Amino acid sequence: MTLDIQRAGTIDQQSLFHPFTAITDLMADGPTIMATGKGVRITDIHGQEYLDGMAGLWCVNLGYGREEISAAMDAQSRRLSFFHAFNGMSIDVAVECAEELLKRAPVPMSRVFFGASGSDGNETQAKLIWYYNQLRGKPEKKKLICRWNSYHGSAVLTASMTGLPGMHSPFLLPMGPIVHTSAPYYYRKAPEGMSEREFSRHLAKELEELIEREGADTIGAFFAEAVMGAGGLIPPPEGYFEEIVPILRRHDILLVMDEVVSGYGRLGTYWGAQMYNVEPDLITSAKGVTSGYFPMSACFISPKVWDVIESNAAAAGLFGHGFTYSAHPVGAAAALASLRLIDEENILANVQQQSDYLFAQMRAAIGDHRAVGDIRGKGLMVGIELVKDRATKETLPMADRTGRQVLKAAAARGLITRALGDTLVFAPPLVINRAEVDELVDKFAAAVNDVLPA
Amino acid sequence: MTLDIQRAGTIDQQSLFHPFTAITDLMADGPTIMATGKGVRITDIHGQEYLDGMAGLWCVNLGYGREEISAAMDAQSRRLSFFHAFNGMSIDVAVECAEELLKRAPVPMSRVFFGASGSDGNETQAKLIWYYNQLRGKPEKKKLICRWNSYHGSAVLTASMTGLPGMHSPFLLPMGPIVHTSAPYYYRKAPEGMSEREFSRHLAKELEELIEREGADTIGAFFAEAVMGAGGLIPPPEGYFEEIVPILRRHDILLVMDEVVSGYGRLGTYWGAQMYNVEPDLITSAKGVTSGYFPMSACFISPKVWDVIESNAAAAGLFGHGFTYSAHPVGAAAALASLRLIDEENILANVQQQSDYLFAQMRAAIGDHRAVGDIRGKGLMVGIELVKDRATKETLPMADRTGRQVLKAAAARGLITRALGDTLVFAPPLVINRAEVDELVDKFAAAVNDVLPA
Ligand SMILES: Cc1ncc(COP(=O)(O)O)c(C=O)c1O
Ligand SMILES: Cc1ncc(COP(=O)(O)O)c(C=O)c1O
Repeated sequence: MTLDIQRAGTIDQQSLFHPFTAITDLMADGPTIMATGKGVRITDIHGQEYLDGMAGLWCVNLGYGREEISAAMDAQSRRLSFFHAFNGMSIDVAVECAEELLKRAPVPMSRVFFGASGSDGNETQAKLIWYYNQLRGKPEKKKLICRWNSYHGSAVLTASMTGLPGMHSPFLLPMGPIVHTSAPYYYRKAPEGMSEREFSRHLAKELEELIEREGADTIGAFFAEAVMGAGGLIPPPEGYFEEIVPILRRHDILLVMDEVVSGYGRLGTYWGAQMYNVEPDLITSAKGVTSGYFPMSACFISPKVWDVIESNAAAAGLFGHGFTYSAHPVGAAAALASLRLIDEENILANVQQQSDYLFAQMRAAIGDHRAVGDIRGKGLMVGIELVKDRATKETLPMADRTGRQVLKAAAARGLITRALGDTLVFAPPLVINRAEVDELVDKFAAAVNDVLPA
Repeated sequence: MTLDIQRAGTIDQQSLFHPFTAITDLMADGPTIMATGKGVRITDIHGQEYLDGMAGLWCVNLGYGREEISAAMDAQSRRLSFFHAFNGMSIDVAVECAEELLKRAPVPMSRVFFGASGSDGNETQAKLIWYYNQLRGKPEKKKLICRWNSYHGSAVLTASMTGLPGMHSPFLLPMGPIVHTSAPYYYRKAPEGMSEREFSRHLAKELEELIEREGADTIGAFFAEAVMGAGGLIPPPEGYFEEIVPILRRHDILLVMDEVVSGYGRLGTYWGAQMYNVEPDLITSAKGVTSGYFPMSACFISPKVWDVIESNAAAAGLFGHGFTYSAHPVGAAAALASLRLIDEENILANVQQQSDYLFAQMRAAIGDHRAVGDIRGKGLMVGIELVKDRATKETLPMADRTGRQVLKAAAARGLITRALGDTLVFAPPLVINRAEVDELVDKFAAAVNDVLPA
């Protein structure tokens, strides 16, 4: 690094176009520039240390500075630094990676398609859905049902699929055959007095009405995160998938599970599909597949979809889709090392244990705080929704940007969280231990009290 | 590697969904599985060595096994294996990378936006065009003019922008506000007897008519590769950009140069924009920025666009776009090492020298061959279009798949090329030397003669 630390903030402000950042905030506050990481901790260029309660962006599941992953990447980078899988070419390590991934799928899957981001994974799925239905002689089965508050990516179609208005209107989106349905947001959207199970039935009914209104023969697929992440940390209410899935089956609508966050152990099961007992036709994964060490997505294609593709292959000819970095050997090496560590270190058991402890400690620390409306989540996905008044659920004034204030107070105490409006979220590395959970909860409770004295 | 070499082909066929591959070919022929690489050479799992005439996919510009790049990635991966730039966060090495990239831009540029693929780069550009025009109060200036035979990516919008019908109809594309105009394909599309310059004027006139027909107030941008790559290796005819650009300026249409292949020296200038003397408003780059060692794209935003974005930032609030792997530290380290090598090894001079030599030798070897219709290109982008009869330019029968036959004959001789229909292309590592150029030309000429005896 030859970066001048004194000038680094200014250089950043004058060079880097930051993703998901308010430019005025960046100009006013300057960036926080990270330099090193180890385990659950990262350190900025000024030497301030943070417990990273977000595992980067829900992805550094095995923690920073994992020798095993870096060493695997380095060895592969020196052996074969790049090759591709276009036109029948392949790479030994990518073949091995595809095989290992299939072994770990929640239901029998036929093939893996690689990319370099969760967004490209979901773009691939959309194209596969259209491809599949056209091959079946049903080209009009094209619409994609997505949910408000979902996050599926930031390319044009995947930003359109995403159910966040702030990602639509500035860019004149949504574009494409996308229909949004309600978020399974029990805390905010369930009518007064309705149980979780009733709310699930209510959402299922709404979905079926939507399908009938649009016409089932115009609908290709339904996309769902297991637990909604970036749209507000929203776990499904009890019975949600149980109510929804039969409706999809009845109408010949594919189920795509977006497991970009939930895959590879974050919920305490290997897949969200297992947590909620669903059998997806397509699965999108990314993030945890390499613990964020290398950009990679892996889409899983079920026999139902693959068989249609393969049996029509002679007539279809070239499959005209793919990315330069599909099946990148260094990514495959990073994934293989990560998959091995997930098994060897019994990561799922740690997630279950620390999840229980984290929720218990969080509830004990701030569960009764006047401004804590809801503490929710699953596994190591945790959301704390702040409100003006927990009795009425009244929201805090937008202009106060309370979530952001708490985030800053936490950062000042050496804890990284993420503010989705006034819902603060945690998705720490899955290797977090009990002492680190204590530290996370203590610092967060203190930060909440800094901003909103009890 | 624990992959069983005897079973590797079968495992590949049963696990990996290959990008841009005909499934029937893969099932019939099996994959070619690569294992190691060094310089311009790669070796498959059976020990067969190849001179890689395609630098992977036009990307391994500095060659395989470059210790300097792998070492930089490894050091960074151990220091900080992941962090992001959402929400005002940053990473020291990404800041340095953005600064170094801006120093190398062909015209003064204001900001760099990072992603992980050429596709996501162009998706970002589309969203920026819509964002910019909406901020300027011109939301209806939305259509993107792209050219037939262009390649801009494989996400839904970028596949739609791409001008290749085989990437459209199987997926029910194009989707979105895209208008295609003619390819600057002099060899095939220029009316008999027309000079290159006249053909450029002809295309410019056609473009202006298109703009007037659609309405300039509905058109946001024009996308162009400097030299078309995947769509047939098509360099612009003389005067092309000179004729086109004033029309875009007159109608307030942004010029986006897609320099995913042409950037970082492939044409013998640092940028295609310099080769053709154009001043783009937006530039998309990828591939060569890391020599393919790490998935990265870098979009350059000009002051014209940035100033509108920044001056409206307070009202606009959060900029709701970005990818998890935007500004990945290991990618930034790979890019910094690559940029340094491009300078230190005087890559541009080598490209100019080997390009002249390669074209001269190729013409000497097969320029008079009865089936060689056209040898064209720029820098180290070389295309050889095979025909039935060079006098009439009659095409070869599609069913013969002659391009693929030549590709296989070249592979049997230890040379990797790429077949775009019956146009065979080369884009070797930019570090190729004279002896390797000789070998490439000799093997290719022999392969052409294997399939099409003179
Ligand atoms: C559920 C989900 N899907 C898709 C994505 C998009 O992934 P990426 O940012 O790698 O494009 C994300 C990113 O956070 C995500 O959370
Ligand atoms: C000119 C051009 N633009 C964009 C792309 C898309 O890049 P990627 O495959 O990394 O998505 C390519 C890929 O070959 C390209 O050649």
